[in-house]
Amino acid sequence: MAFEELQREHGKRLEIREFQGLAYARLRDDHHHLPRGTVFFPSGRRVMGYPHIGRILALASGLEAQFRAPVWAEEKLNGYNVRVVQEAGRFLALTRGGFVCPFTTHRLPDLLDLDALRALPEVVVCAEVVGPENPYVLGHPPHVSHDVRAFVFDFMRVGEAGFLPYREKLCLLEALGLPSVPRYGRFDLHQVIDLDDLVRDLDRRGCEGLVFKEDSPRDKRAKYVTASAALDDIGMNAANLMELPPEYFTGRVLRLALFLVDRGEAPGARAEALGHAFLDGLAEMIRRFREEGQGYLRYRCRFREAEAAEVFFHHLAAIASRQVRLRLHSLERDGEQWRLTFDRVPVHINGLLQDLLTGTLVFD
Amino acid sequence: MAFEELQREHGKRLEIREFQGLAYARLRDDHHHLPRGTVFFPSGRRVMGYPHIGRILALASGLEAQFRAPVWAEEKLNGYNVRVVQEAGRFLALTRGGFVCPFTTHRLPDLLDLDALRALPEVVVCAEVVGPENPYVLGHPPHVSHDVRAFVFDFMRVGEAGFLPYREKLCLLEALGLPSVPRYGRFDLHQVIDLDDLVRDLDRRGCEGLVFKEDSPRDKRAKYVTASAALDDIGMNAANLMELPPEYFTGRVLRLALFLVDRGEAPGARAEALGHAFLDGLAEMIRRFREEGQGYLRYRCRFREAEAAEVFFHHLAAIASRQVRLRLHSLERDGEQWRLTFDRVPVHINGLLQDLLTGTLVFD
Repeated sequence: MAFEELQREHGKRLEIREFQGLAYARLRDDHHHLPRGTVFFPSGRRVMGYPHIGRILALASGLEAQFRAPVWAEEKLNGYNVRVVQEAGRFLALTRGGFVCPFTTHRLPDLLDLDALRALPEVVVCAEVVGPENPYVLGHPPHVSHDVRAFVFDFMRVGEAGFLPYREKLCLLEALGLPSVPRYGRFDLHQVIDLDDLVRDLDRRGCEGLVFKEDSPRDKRAKYVTASAALDDIGMNAANLMELPPEYFTGRVLRLALFLVDRGEAPGARAEALGHAFLDGLAEMIRRFREEGQGYLRYRCRFREAEAAEVFFHHLAAIASRQVRLRLHSLERDGEQWRLTFDRVPVHINGLLQDLLTGTLVFD
Repeated sequence: MAFEELQREHGKRLEIREFQGLAYARLRDDHHHLPRGTVFFPSGRRVMGYPHIGRILALASGLEAQFRAPVWAEEKLNGYNVRVVQEAGRFLALTRGGFVCPFTTHRLPDLLDLDALRALPEVVVCAEVVGPENPYVLGHPPHVSHDVRAFVFDFMRVGEAGFLPYREKLCLLEALGLPSVPRYGRFDLHQVIDLDDLVRDLDRRGCEGLVFKEDSPRDKRAKYVTASAALDDIGMNAANLMELPPEYFTGRVLRLALFLVDRGEAPGARAEALGHAFLDGLAEMIRRFREEGQGYLRYRCRFREAEAAEVFFHHLAAIASRQVRLRLHSLERDGEQWRLTFDRVPVHINGLLQDLLTGTLVFD
């Protein structure tokens, strides 16, 4: 078995899985300088996990403290991160956690020009998959209003840590005709006012924020997100209030406060938006519980064939946490596509709402 | 040593302390059917911890499910719970956690008619201490606008679990001339509309809620709190966002949502209030950090003598958690009283604000 040595090295951190006859192993946690989500194939090839990008909480001082050369500014998109790799003669899409995603893998021909990529088997494409019909993230950038799309932000090489240099990335994007995340150019560190204007504009348009990449060999990175991103995250996930770690919410409240302080903005209209983000999501959850007997979050995604949707739903059910139950709603033909609709039913908050209706005593 | 046997029984859950020459032991956690905060004296006398009162999240179904006889409705006040006991010839005020509180003990002559109580050494008085100048809780009922006051809601007996029956409580309150929490009378279980009106009125006036006590030998209890209480808690503690367990905040957001649902009320104006509760508290914290170099929460309380204030401040510093640093601001004479002003400086959020200003990269 090809993974024996890896198992000795990583123990229970390594999980061996299978996707359509192909065995692979994923790293569940950071270990021995390998990031969580690193994937190993029986061929001996390895795809590094996508590393965490640190966050700055104030634009000017953050840029000053973190960078020593001009930075490229790219839009941070609200979706999910995949690494696309060729292995054993086919393209696979790996999620951040190192799962082969059956949905994204199946939809790759719609997302990227695979023919162009085929000639570069050692290149790993790092992209954000975004759109209203994706199976993981409620919420999407305002400029993608149908189905899903992929936007590339990095290239890696199989087996290697780090990314292709920025200018090589630009060449490859153009040569391969791949869609890029919106790029806003290269900024000297004293152009903070321009970046601040850009951030304000992104925030106004409901965009998530920026990733900065230093124009230097060390390729230092940092991200900075908008108030709008914090509000969206809270609003989309308020129904998950009892399932997500509570720090998810308090952390975003704090980021929102810091964003306002950084802009010299009083709470004002954002206070109302924050309250609505929490209460509207919860009210909708409670309404569903009352009217339909269960509160849930609804997801939709599109497939080219019905079978692929079934495979994907079984995959999701198999990897679901105990805190959320998956429920198939429907699988319907829509033109050339099949549309899967499924619900995530958070267990704890439904229990609590049940308690509410039956008048149970709660000790907290 | 009188506590040896107790230590064998309770191990590290028992903490032995001393207050002005009197040794006592407190139970840090629930153990062997004794609640946290149970206090033992060398005389062999014991004061039971004040038990948790369960919460109902919906008024009508909660009353129906929890009670089988009419209930007394009393106002739940926003302050801190003390048990007042006579031991070794003096009156002591015990906090919920079982500490002798030097502040409350010192102020007892101002809070309760001790002369009347002296004849009843086996009676423990359970009271809420409330007011704008208290050392533990920011926020106070609207009807107490100066210093602190105590309002009695229960009597226990030394050594015994449970409370004096409600009608005996009423007699004792009257006979001893002790101040009671506002009592709203006795309600049949079908009078839910009256109770709902009462709850709405309390909410409008900024009051915290109700405690229900069944008029039956089993003395069953439950509490129900207002939206106003949830909003106050969040607003008063937003500056403690990184120090309190994050569930403190998410739990209250959920209670607020459930309160609105229970009244059939849309988020509306409460959404704005919720957003302000979070953001105004944080903005004030951040303003203090920027202008004074440190964010903090300020507390004031009044003493009859300066020495007592010093004793109290040392007590607070000794029992403070590592997450909060105590800082003495001032001790000033004010008429017949001494006014102590001190700050709680939350450590984590100050560190984060420092990171903000210096542009540190945060990984979350």
